[in-house]
Amino acid sequence: MSNGAAVRDRVRIPRDRARDYSDEMAAQRREFIRQQTGADLAHVSRYSLNPGTLPGNIENFAGVAQVPLGIAGPLRINGEHAQGDFYIPLATTEGTLVSSYNRGMRLLTESGGVKTTVVEEAMQRAPVFVLEDALHGREFGRWVDENFDAIRHQAEATTQFGKLRNIAQFAVGPMRYLRFNYTTGDAAGQNMTGKATYAACEWILKNFPGRILHYYLSGNVDTDKKHSYINLLLTRGKRVVAEAVLRRELMQKYLHIDSLDLVRTRGVQMAGAFMAGSANNGAHSANALAALFIATGQDVANVAESHAAITYSQYLDSGDFYWSVTLPSLIVGTYGGGTGLATQKECLDMLGCYGKGKAQKFAEICAAVVLAGETSLVAAMLHGDWVYAHERLGRNRP
Amino acid sequence: MSNGAAVRDRVRIPRDRARDYSDEMAAQRREFIRQQTGADLAHVSRYSLNPGTLPGNIENFAGVAQVPLGIAGPLRINGEHAQGDFYIPLATTEGTLVSSYNRGMRLLTESGGVKTTVVEEAMQRAPVFVLEDALHGREFGRWVDENFDAIRHQAEATTQFGKLRNIAQFAVGPMRYLRFNYTTGDAAGQNMTGKATYAACEWILKNFPGRILHYYLSGNVDTDKKHSYINLLLTRGKRVVAEAVLRRELMQKYLHIDSLDLVRTRGVQMAGAFMAGSANNGAHSANALAALFIATGQDVANVAESHAAITYSQYLDSGDFYWSVTLPSLIVGTYGGGTGLATQKECLDMLGCYGKGKAQKFAEICAAVVLAGETSLVAAMLHGDWVYAHERLGRNRP
Amino acid sequence: MSNGAAVRDRVRIPRDRARDYSDEMAAQRREFIRQQTGADLAHVSRYSLNPGTLPGNIENFAGVAQVPLGIAGPLRINGEHAQGDFYIPLATTEGTLVSSYNRGMRLLTESGGVKTTVVEEAMQRAPVFVLEDALHGREFGRWVDENFDAIRHQAEATTQFGKLRNIAQFAVGPMRYLRFNYTTGDAAGQNMTGKATYAACEWILKNFPGRILHYYLSGNVDTDKKHSYINLLLTRGKRVVAEAVLRRELMQKYLHIDSLDLVRTRGVQMAGAFMAGSANNGAHSANALAALFIATGQDVANVAESHAAITYSQYLDSGDFYWSVTLPSLIVGTYGGGTGLATQKECLDMLGCYGKGKAQKFAEICAAVVLAGETSLVAAMLHGDWVYAHERLGRNRP
Amino acid sequence: MSNGAAVRDRVRIPRDRARDYSDEMAAQRREFIRQQTGADLAHVSRYSLNPGTLPGNIENFAGVAQVPLGIAGPLRINGEHAQGDFYIPLATTEGTLVSSYNRGMRLLTESGGVKTTVVEEAMQRAPVFVLEDALHGREFGRWVDENFDAIRHQAEATTQFGKLRNIAQFAVGPMRYLRFNYTTGDAAGQNMTGKATYAACEWILKNFPGRILHYYLSGNVDTDKKHSYINLLLTRGKRVVAEAVLRRELMQKYLHIDSLDLVRTRGVQMAGAFMAGSANNGAHSANALAALFIATGQDVANVAESHAAITYSQYLDSGDFYWSVTLPSLIVGTYGGGTGLATQKECLDMLGCYGKGKAQKFAEICAAVVLAGETSLVAAMLHGDWVYAHERLGRNRP
Repeated sequence: MSNGAAVRDRVRIPRDRARDYSDEMAAQRREFIRQQTGADLAHVSRYSLNPGTLPGNIENFAGVAQVPLGIAGPLRINGEHAQGDFYIPLATTEGTLVSSYNRGMRLLTESGGVKTTVVEEAMQRAPVFVLEDALHGREFGRWVDENFDAIRHQAEATTQFGKLRNIAQFAVGPMRYLRFNYTTGDAAGQNMTGKATYAACEWILKNFPGRILHYYLSGNVDTDKKHSYINLLLTRGKRVVAEAVLRRELMQKYLHIDSLDLVRTRGVQMAGAFMAGSANNGAHSANALAALFIATGQDVANVAESHAAITYSQYLDSGDFYWSVTLPSLIVGTYGGGTGLATQKECLDMLGCYGKGKAQKFAEICAAVVLAGETSLVAAMLHGDWVYAHERLGRNRP
Repeated sequence: MSNGAAVRDRVRIPRDRARDYSDEMAAQRREFIRQQTGADLAHVSRYSLNPGTLPGNIENFAGVAQVPLGIAGPLRINGEHAQGDFYIPLATTEGTLVSSYNRGMRLLTESGGVKTTVVEEAMQRAPVFVLEDALHGREFGRWVDENFDAIRHQAEATTQFGKLRNIAQFAVGPMRYLRFNYTTGDAAGQNMTGKATYAACEWILKNFPGRILHYYLSGNVDTDKKHSYINLLLTRGKRVVAEAVLRRELMQKYLHIDSLDLVRTRGVQMAGAFMAGSANNGAHSANALAALFIATGQDVANVAESHAAITYSQYLDSGDFYWSVTLPSLIVGTYGGGTGLATQKECLDMLGCYGKGKAQKFAEICAAVVLAGETSLVAAMLHGDWVYAHERLGRNRP
Repeated sequence: MSNGAAVRDRVRIPRDRARDYSDEMAAQRREFIRQQTGADLAHVSRYSLNPGTLPGNIENFAGVAQVPLGIAGPLRINGEHAQGDFYIPLATTEGTLVSSYNRGMRLLTESGGVKTTVVEEAMQRAPVFVLEDALHGREFGRWVDENFDAIRHQAEATTQFGKLRNIAQFAVGPMRYLRFNYTTGDAAGQNMTGKATYAACEWILKNFPGRILHYYLSGNVDTDKKHSYINLLLTRGKRVVAEAVLRRELMQKYLHIDSLDLVRTRGVQMAGAFMAGSANNGAHSANALAALFIATGQDVANVAESHAAITYSQYLDSGDFYWSVTLPSLIVGTYGGGTGLATQKECLDMLGCYGKGKAQKFAEICAAVVLAGETSLVAAMLHGDWVYAHERLGRNRP
Repeated sequence: MSNGAAVRDRVRIPRDRARDYSDEMAAQRREFIRQQTGADLAHVSRYSLNPGTLPGNIENFAGVAQVPLGIAGPLRINGEHAQGDFYIPLATTEGTLVSSYNRGMRLLTESGGVKTTVVEEAMQRAPVFVLEDALHGREFGRWVDENFDAIRHQAEATTQFGKLRNIAQFAVGPMRYLRFNYTTGDAAGQNMTGKATYAACEWILKNFPGRILHYYLSGNVDTDKKHSYINLLLTRGKRVVAEAVLRRELMQKYLHIDSLDLVRTRGVQMAGAFMAGSANNGAHSANALAALFIATGQDVANVAESHAAITYSQYLDSGDFYWSVTLPSLIVGTYGGGTGLATQKECLDMLGCYGKGKAQKFAEICAAVVLAGETSLVAAMLHGDWVYAHERLGRNRP
């Protein structure tokens, strides 16, 4: 071919500034893909959402992925914000997921429901400043502490809902990693905190009397879109707890297992998770969260952080079994992001969770659903164990 | 109300054994939700997939979540299995994601493309056996080693494609955690390996001459749906590497940054990730993977494992910059699961990745897309840094 | 034998309230051991310390372990508190350790010395309170925050030197882990903080208006005598940085290596450490610390926490190589513990570090010695690499 | 000063090739230190060991550190190799350490003793090879597997006792980290494995038909002198288990605590350790190991690896409490290193552990002592808890 520009144009995905978010452009892009790859995107074209609602959510829009949606419930929740019996929309392609959560919800609901609490909130952006040496780094850190009010003022000037709670500092060599912790209202808050922190950093850069060699808006201790111990310890997004007491008689009747079976199983699972260096000493929080996130327009990449979980359980003197799951870095919003899109808004409506003032309620629901999945899976596993255990073996052993 | 059963029925999600996967039942469920919650699931009802295709993918089907789909590319890949220029379907609601990956793809393509390799495969189910004490545990472990062929025979009898490679053992107290490592053809393989391992465990239970106190089909070292160090080290699913050499002149011309800027930045990011105990010492693999997984019918909960990543980069004597990303636990399939659903199959078709013999190709594409996102994000961050760095500061410092 | 009590007495290690710390009782115990085990503790008996100085340091005293002491140096340190050329006492039985550190000290000293800074201090005791549920836990946490001054008053009343800086909180289920952070003057401070925190907890127990189900003086997030990510992030004991710039010409002349060799090597080592989930992305801090700790009367078990280290290095535009080591949880004291014992005090005297007002100086020396070992080991490894690399290979590759 | 060389000589620590390991040279060095620093090393000079035994253990010998030695016991051990009642030499300066372990030993001994088992052995050196790209890395890995017998031959030719079990491989980018796993007889084995692996690497370098860009004898996944998840999972040195069943009546009688108190406490401690990312979900293994290591001539820096521990416990149907500690990376030897030095050999003799054929026995003793410390500390903590718990509170809560 004689014309490189033409060739290059031929492989560029069609765009159009004036009407980029339109059915026509989506069709053009599908046609382009058909020509380039032979793939017919017929089902991708079958959407009901209005492309005009998509700026800020997608680029090079070409249609939709249709993800099957199942419903589980009711799940009784006795939370601070979530109170009542809920039906849970789960978008997934994994068979048995909906039915497994459904089974757990039934057990929890019959046991009196799930108690839920948001115990902490902190969304981050964590820039890093490189100083001349560690001593200058320490002085820089002190200056940041002393000028916190001014820094907060700069950060909060960029946002209506974001509030800067504090700035945690971590020193390595000549560097200071600063972890800006915000509350972000009903938005998940990544963009809000990025913008606010950038403003704060630029102000620091101008006003710090010493010499700053470099700074990066992220030094990788945020840790955005990544599981980490810092999230497990210091919270990212919301730290939410779901708790329930499973009645011994109910478990014996419905699941044919005893509280002490759960004690034993949990011991084995916790040792395994500890040795493996796992993000979750329970079972499968990610299943609940991925399905809920797709259904309700959350940033699904945040499953990376959100699936971290700490199960803490105890045998009670009553013979019942106390079970809690703590999600230390649940990142959710009910406003902004993908929450207002066509099907996503409908799913939030099912939960009474669309819009402002609903993020804590939605976080509580997420945690309760995770707990339902934990009880369901362990019960299933134990029931199998139970069969042979009673045939061949006593239990008076580790 | 006088009738408890009637009340309970009123809150049960409608089911029907004969025609559970039908438009009618989906409509009944939406109507039920409308009555229970007031939410109108009008858009959820606007799907084109055939409910008859859904058994094995969802229960209590009520419609679909429509997730906007954007297209990025072309991305040149010079892999073992993926070769050529690819257009990448990304299903997301996060603004700028598609355009950011697009920018990275352009840089990589102009630098000659991305080299990709699947370097290892191993999908797991990891049961745990509790013996009388550690000594009996050690003997049990030896017996398992000695009877590996018979165990493999039992496991492989349950599956057409699954092959048991080996059984890794981890001893804690009186327990033996056994990590069954399989190759699983073109399926992600969680169900296949669960079924095969269950058969193997039952055989072990019958044939081990000693006493087994308990066993659980999972001891939490699989580690299914969870990030972990065991996955980072020992692979889960596929271990895939994407590599590229970024040309110094190209970076200077297009990004106004130099190779040595990347050296410096990576040093800062790696120290941060190490201290934070992060699952990824790079930036945001989860963004690429979540969007690709939704588009192509992967199990999105596996973002939990799959987002683990190890970036390794080097400054070359030529002045260019070598950049690699290793995904140690990428869980993908091109057959089974959600891959055959309406829009998902179309997206796999775009990539020439639907069906058998395609899983390695698709894994390579995933890794290449992740690398595109890494280069794009760091370049963006550095470009900001560059501005002020040149105004105020020299660079002859850490 | 007819008399159980007599039998039992015969196997009891001899004690004597009145003169338990005497040469005679030590001799009796050695004789007892000779009778019980046949072992002659002749060398163990050859000590010069005064047993009367040992209460508070040992029980059932029987003699000493003689650990060979070598001397390395001089090491030039340009710290805040440690300034000058130091000779370093290293008690070890590992051949080449002293000479290897010696080589590193020479390189660093000729490069101008090591800059050292204590950037943070916090010694902990971390009790955990179990409340009725997560909501009560959150309220308890708020009450602790609101009553911090009173709590601090209680804690500080028990100690002359300990100052309670803050109480960090970590919520899991119905629990609140409280991490009491102290500065402890020149003592390592574990006992001081334990006593102070106990007083504070008892006060909390009496004064908190709600119901506390249980509390434990340690909830395992201190994390005493254990490496942990919480220490890496949030400091335990002292966070100390040692920094140096290695001159390119010096390295080429003495080590036959180039700065860019170090860049490449560090990249490889950091990727390995990250994947392995290591406590130290450098080489062998534990060697320096164990040998220094034995020599100077530190609690050697604290090598567990203290060996955590973060290496951060950079290639400079000058062609030189910046190298820093950050020890985030160095636990040392120059007062109390074993610091006043006969040989230990002498070793501290060698460093000008015995007694009050010296702990920061000693911490700086520890970090400088660690850095010397890092440079020495990598140089040795690289030099081997260099040999064959020049024979067979180019370097223009990752 | 006019003469630089003279100045430099004046600050050099005295050496003498002919008689470097002599009382005279030790005295010269102490005198040198006195002149340079003013410190009088009078007690350091009071040793009974023969300097002529020290080559291979220390350089620049100047005397000894005298570490107080206390004795605890008897501790009943029912191991494979350690059988009987043992008196344990503990070298420490930490008050209460000996008496606390003593208390635990008594409880365990009265409960019938500790069962101990070495369940796995593997000492490492882990070189890394850098290939041209990931594909070449994979091929290199395959070649290593295919040539394992030849590689083993090369490695084993350098050592009398070291046996190469297998080579584990870990791929990152273009690199292959090879973890050579050896058994090392009765030596800890770091030097032996380093030498053997070096020979193997040089052979690989000569014989691999492809191109190797670089190799380093350590790629930081050994992970020598560092705690890591790879050690926790894959063993370093010896993996040893100590187990005991604590009788309910004994605990009630002596400790005033019940089995269910231990169940509850362990739950709290394990959640804390998991969240903190701790190397040990128990309490204080490092205390036992540091004191034992100093007394018996182990490489004390290996406390870094050795203190990793996994506690696994269970409530038994009998009402008793099963308690196990697994040390996954215990590094000990009874031959070579510092084991033959004057006092160290005596302490090994106390245990019947000096010389060949004793390393497993000694490893079992170490684990048993660790378990004694765990029981003692938790009992002490619980006893405090017990007091107020009975005054104010019921126990029917988490």
